[in-house]
Amino acid sequence: MSDSRPVVTLLTDFGTSVPYAAMMKGVILGAAPGVNIIDLTHAVPAQQVLPAAVMLFDAYRYFPVGTIHLAVVDPGVGTSRAILAACADRHFFVAPDNGLLGPVLQAASAADVVCLQGAGRCSSGISSTFHGRDVMAPAVAALAAGEPLSSLGEEFDDWQPMEIPRPGLEPGRITGEILYIDDFGNLVSNITARDLEAGSIDCAAASVYVDGNVVRGIVRTYADTGPGGFCALLNSSGRLEVAVTNGSAARILGVEPGIQITVVV
Amino acid sequence: MSDSRPVVTLLTDFGTSVPYAAMMKGVILGAAPGVNIIDLTHAVPAQQVLPAAVMLFDAYRYFPVGTIHLAVVDPGVGTSRAILAACADRHFFVAPDNGLLGPVLQAASAADVVCLQGAGRCSSGISSTFHGRDVMAPAVAALAAGEPLSSLGEEFDDWQPMEIPRPGLEPGRITGEILYIDDFGNLVSNITARDLEAGSIDCAAASVYVDGNVVRGIVRTYADTGPGGFCALLNSSGRLEVAVTNGSAARILGVEPGIQITVVV
Amino acid sequence: MSDSRPVVTLLTDFGTSVPYAAMMKGVILGAAPGVNIIDLTHAVPAQQVLPAAVMLFDAYRYFPVGTIHLAVVDPGVGTSRAILAACADRHFFVAPDNGLLGPVLQAASAADVVCLQGAGRCSSGISSTFHGRDVMAPAVAALAAGEPLSSLGEEFDDWQPMEIPRPGLEPGRITGEILYIDDFGNLVSNITARDLEAGSIDCAAASVYVDGNVVRGIVRTYADTGPGGFCALLNSSGRLEVAVTNGSAARILGVEPGIQITVVV
Repeated sequence: MSDSRPVVTLLTDFGTSVPYAAMMKGVILGAAPGVNIIDLTHAVPAQQVLPAAVMLFDAYRYFPVGTIHLAVVDPGVGTSRAILAACADRHFFVAPDNGLLGPVLQAASAADVVCLQGAGRCSSGISSTFHGRDVMAPAVAALAAGEPLSSLGEEFDDWQPMEIPRPGLEPGRITGEILYIDDFGNLVSNITARDLEAGSIDCAAASVYVDGNVVRGIVRTYADTGPGGFCALLNSSGRLEVAVTNGSAARILGVEPGIQITVVV
Repeated sequence: MSDSRPVVTLLTDFGTSVPYAAMMKGVILGAAPGVNIIDLTHAVPAQQVLPAAVMLFDAYRYFPVGTIHLAVVDPGVGTSRAILAACADRHFFVAPDNGLLGPVLQAASAADVVCLQGAGRCSSGISSTFHGRDVMAPAVAALAAGEPLSSLGEEFDDWQPMEIPRPGLEPGRITGEILYIDDFGNLVSNITARDLEAGSIDCAAASVYVDGNVVRGIVRTYADTGPGGFCALLNSSGRLEVAVTNGSAARILGVEPGIQITVVV
Repeated sequence: MSDSRPVVTLLTDFGTSVPYAAMMKGVILGAAPGVNIIDLTHAVPAQQVLPAAVMLFDAYRYFPVGTIHLAVVDPGVGTSRAILAACADRHFFVAPDNGLLGPVLQAASAADVVCLQGAGRCSSGISSTFHGRDVMAPAVAALAAGEPLSSLGEEFDDWQPMEIPRPGLEPGRITGEILYIDDFGNLVSNITARDLEAGSIDCAAASVYVDGNVVRGIVRTYADTGPGGFCALLNSSGRLEVAVTNGSAARILGVEPGIQITVVV
């Protein structure tokens, strides 16, 4: 098990009906043959940078140190927005400069960020609609092949930040919002374990309100509520979520990301 | 081609919109870098152990001996249900003890099963909602790294069985049920080639009833019926299925898994 | 980075709800352990050979020379239709002989094509409904293991061609059709950059008609149109597409592949 093939992850809003993500993989494998490519997801809601940034932030840390994360949610493709390559928390990241890397870079104690010199790397054949394939994938391959970050472009400290919206903390009340919905229909919020501690929330006594519905108590796991019942719990990323045991909270409530969630003691 | 990188397969009900399955892959690759990870599917209907158990049973044998199959459909996550690691038919399996491994273990002439000592392996940081990532993925990595099964926990023979429902056999009639529906809309049942033989069914003369519809004859392949026509055949896993040639039987009939299917001569 | 593991791509209409594609991967990995398998897509519309052929043609070239592309959209499975293995443009291809390889083979300056001797290779256990797994995957593994194409079957020059429908070119007008729709809802047509040049189309002055709607001007990138606005542009494969910036043209227009698209100056 002395294999040290670099790991590359992909996070996009491309979907998988058409081989867009696959084309990026082909470009990476052409220049860095031994790479192990793992999909984070390709189902980010189209052009939605915030949920993409949250999912990348929650997921990257489970990968080995040295993993290269390519994230492409890029409504500004073909414009003059920069493309970033970065090293933070001993992971590498390549993404458009639109906030996608914000949570990762802001949380890191130190981060090296460069602005890709795309035109310099791929002097011909860059499409104006697919920089993920034509500019970012070659940069990922260069990192995977061991090229230093500094060889990819000039140092760039003016990257675009992104704040995951912070919940409002009042005595006895936390007001947050649903960031994304998973395939179980669980509603995942911006309220974290840390927020519950900061608000000195007694989980057993708390009530959680979503869209006019109330869930009594924040439980430890799904099975603490009977099948079909609503439950509120801290999920595996430390985020408060509302779920229906063996059901879909999203379908039953008919809600979308962005909706308010409130914890009251 | 002397590469002997271990193969790991994943079967879950997580979906792929959110990086849950990817987090498990990251954990595995962190501890067993050279592993080749293949998705069986992540679209098992949520919390449905039976179709997951059938799909695992039908699929695992196509992988090389020594493959490690991680299956996570886990409505009891966070409860005291055991987590199993097993070796059967020269394949390895890791899954919650809820019947998911039942068909594999019951069909094997011999099986070694241990109960994971999760708390012992990962003394900190185990979530109560994602044991696939926090307990099972590390066990998979340990197996991939060559650790013996016995090092993962105590021998455990009291695992939960699961019978794939057996069809009813009467003279001239077999009554079964639809186990799952594939993306073509084909209805896959629990009636097998062996059942047809046991019932001495003459395929050409048989009629197959599903939801009030009748299909005359069990044919050899889809093209034996004209486009748009219903056909009944033994699929590539030896299961009787009802399909619409170049169409979707599920959409046309509007049926769900669990519905009855009857073969009459 | 001296790793030279062969790359295999898969393109099918199997979907991913059920482990059909995974079974093919298992078979390939059993016979060619070191292979790196990449999904192009498994969401080709069921039994639709044309969009599959277009996507394969547009995507294969982004993979390294020597990649083996397995494409299975196979309405004639189990019939006497041939199964092909081919080498063209220094890539390998395995697919049923139904036109799927047509665009690739027709565009290549030279192509070696053989007809698989399936029965000879796998004398037992070939299902009549899944030749992708039982005949084509073993052929892919043989190629990945370095066996010469000529060992897989007899030379075969009578393969089925497939013309991607050519747009009609008249002075000041090009009439094409939508070939497929991607997950953004972008409508991808058979009109290429070359057609616009051949028709001496002035992009800025052109109007593009789809289903009674008109888009003024062919722009360079999505952001050239305001959010919610229709735009027409040459996509990253050189095909004219109609999109809605930060929206879904397919959903707004309610159109399907096959619909006419017209460019008028």
